[in-house]
Amino acid sequence: MHIHVDFHLPASARERLTSELRKHTITFSEQATASVLEAAPPDESILEADVVFGQPDPDMILASNTLRFVQISTSGITRYDTREFKENARNRGLKICNSAHVYNEACAEHVFSFLLAQSRQLPTALSTRDMGGARPWQDFRDACVSLKNQSLVITGYGAIAERLVELLQPFQMKVTAFRRRARGTETVPVLTTEAELADALGRADHVVNILPMHPDTKHFFDANRFQQFKCGSIFYNIGRGGTVQQDDLAGALRAGRPAAAWLDVTDPEPLPADHPLWRDERVFITPHVAGGHHGESEHLVRHFLKNFSAFETGNKLLDSIL
Amino acid sequence: MHIHVDFHLPASARERLTSELRKHTITFSEQATASVLEAAPPDESILEADVVFGQPDPDMILASNTLRFVQISTSGITRYDTREFKENARNRGLKICNSAHVYNEACAEHVFSFLLAQSRQLPTALSTRDMGGARPWQDFRDACVSLKNQSLVITGYGAIAERLVELLQPFQMKVTAFRRRARGTETVPVLTTEAELADALGRADHVVNILPMHPDTKHFFDANRFQQFKCGSIFYNIGRGGTVQQDDLAGALRAGRPAAAWLDVTDPEPLPADHPLWRDERVFITPHVAGGHHGESEHLVRHFLKNFSAFETGNKLLDSIL
Repeated sequence: MHIHVDFHLPASARERLTSELRKHTITFSEQATASVLEAAPPDESILEADVVFGQPDPDMILASNTLRFVQISTSGITRYDTREFKENARNRGLKICNSAHVYNEACAEHVFSFLLAQSRQLPTALSTRDMGGARPWQDFRDACVSLKNQSLVITGYGAIAERLVELLQPFQMKVTAFRRRARGTETVPVLTTEAELADALGRADHVVNILPMHPDTKHFFDANRFQQFKCGSIFYNIGRGGTVQQDDLAGALRAGRPAAAWLDVTDPEPLPADHPLWRDERVFITPHVAGGHHGESEHLVRHFLKNFSAFETGNKLLDSIL
Repeated sequence: MHIHVDFHLPASARERLTSELRKHTITFSEQATASVLEAAPPDESILEADVVFGQPDPDMILASNTLRFVQISTSGITRYDTREFKENARNRGLKICNSAHVYNEACAEHVFSFLLAQSRQLPTALSTRDMGGARPWQDFRDACVSLKNQSLVITGYGAIAERLVELLQPFQMKVTAFRRRARGTETVPVLTTEAELADALGRADHVVNILPMHPDTKHFFDANRFQQFKCGSIFYNIGRGGTVQQDDLAGALRAGRPAAAWLDVTDPEPLPADHPLWRDERVFITPHVAGGHHGESEHLVRHFLKNFSAFETGNKLLDSIL
């Protein structure tokens, strides 16, 4: 088979691929992007390949008469998540997977680090030298709230949420997840309607947004949604920036719903230098690194090789989106 | 009975005590300290009380002919942890408890927040705006190392370590604990000898120090001990500052063993303004707040009332140290 790789991989990862797939023809795009987050530019090689690994252009995928399996190198699939693309790809019998299981552990740990940094007031604690007995010290201790028994709502239930729920298990938190179509495999109670979600948001101490970007989820968190939050609740976004109306979030923070926000994603990225979210002391921003981890490229390659082998033998693919 | 309270409690906590113990005589020290970390000044009331709750002076305890039960309001018991005091108190039939179970959850969550902030590189991430594709961004993602399957050594196994081990369970880390006398109730493999500890330190990705302060543990972590560390390992101290030789730690960091240090306790507290640990970018210090949590005073009172009731009825006390 002809396997085409259209994103940047370090030499060691390319060698691993070449060596494992030596029975096949493997080509690497010359115009590979530096970041897995960027779309690859249209690439003619796709038209002749059987398999593509990376960020292929959706139109090129559909234009190819040879393609049978596409392994997307990210968790996010916004560009492929349209009815038209999916219908066409399905009719063509294409297999398409994302790389959710490459990133779910790191993403879950990242949002977990946010939860604990918030509950232990780390940003303040790391910048204060006031000691025992001082007023700020007492206030500071009092502001630390254990996660134990607190309530948490997750919007968007997939591989990341699943792992997050596992990690939180020893805290005995009251966790619920919002997902429009429950599949019955979820490990926490699922909210499927707007009314159920509104009710849960009104009681949640923590709201973790992992929604994917999609026309339906654009600005899912807007002024109205934030008004459903409990006063003093904390908001976390490690999904996609566009699912949150950024100015509405800035306004909501001024009203204390939420009382603080931890964001790994924003819209746009980065936010303009003068955006109010940069200046708000209740806002903590990391630059879209939640999925990052040491050995990421090798991990992506292992995931692809596993799926390619399953594809060759007709077995079940991991992270199948079509 | 006459119950004397010698540390500062907010009005609501004092009222709770008075109301629950209305069958008894309860007195509050006028010279109560503002911080639970400070020793209370010698207080004559102890000489006539049956029960003391707080930080009573060890000599006053032994001078009292009436005392039968002492509830210490901290986890640390350095001042009471001498052979002489313990022997005398034991001969007198005194019951003495600390408040380990008031602080273990918060302490475990605090050190856990350190572990995750380190593994997700939070201090750096929260201060960078470089985005996808930029060199620092790629380096940054690569510096994030999942806790999953990593190895961790805990020195000092008590209520905090026990809870930490529970919290870490979903990460499937290889956890061992150093404790000179294993009791058989530990939930992880126990190292009891210096040789076993040295071997474990040479392989540990993370070393969490929760040793209590005691003549035997003073400067337990010194230059020699740090040389046993694996290059690139991370050191955490939420026990007592004096168990670590601070200048040796500063020197060890320059040699990369450990590669970073997260400290909730130092010696002295705070460190002098010009101490090298303040200026080292690999050192993260919070001001002895690991045990702090919202509702701490009420929690202490609940713990005392539970123990007092057990003491009255001759039942088993929680956090008994004698």
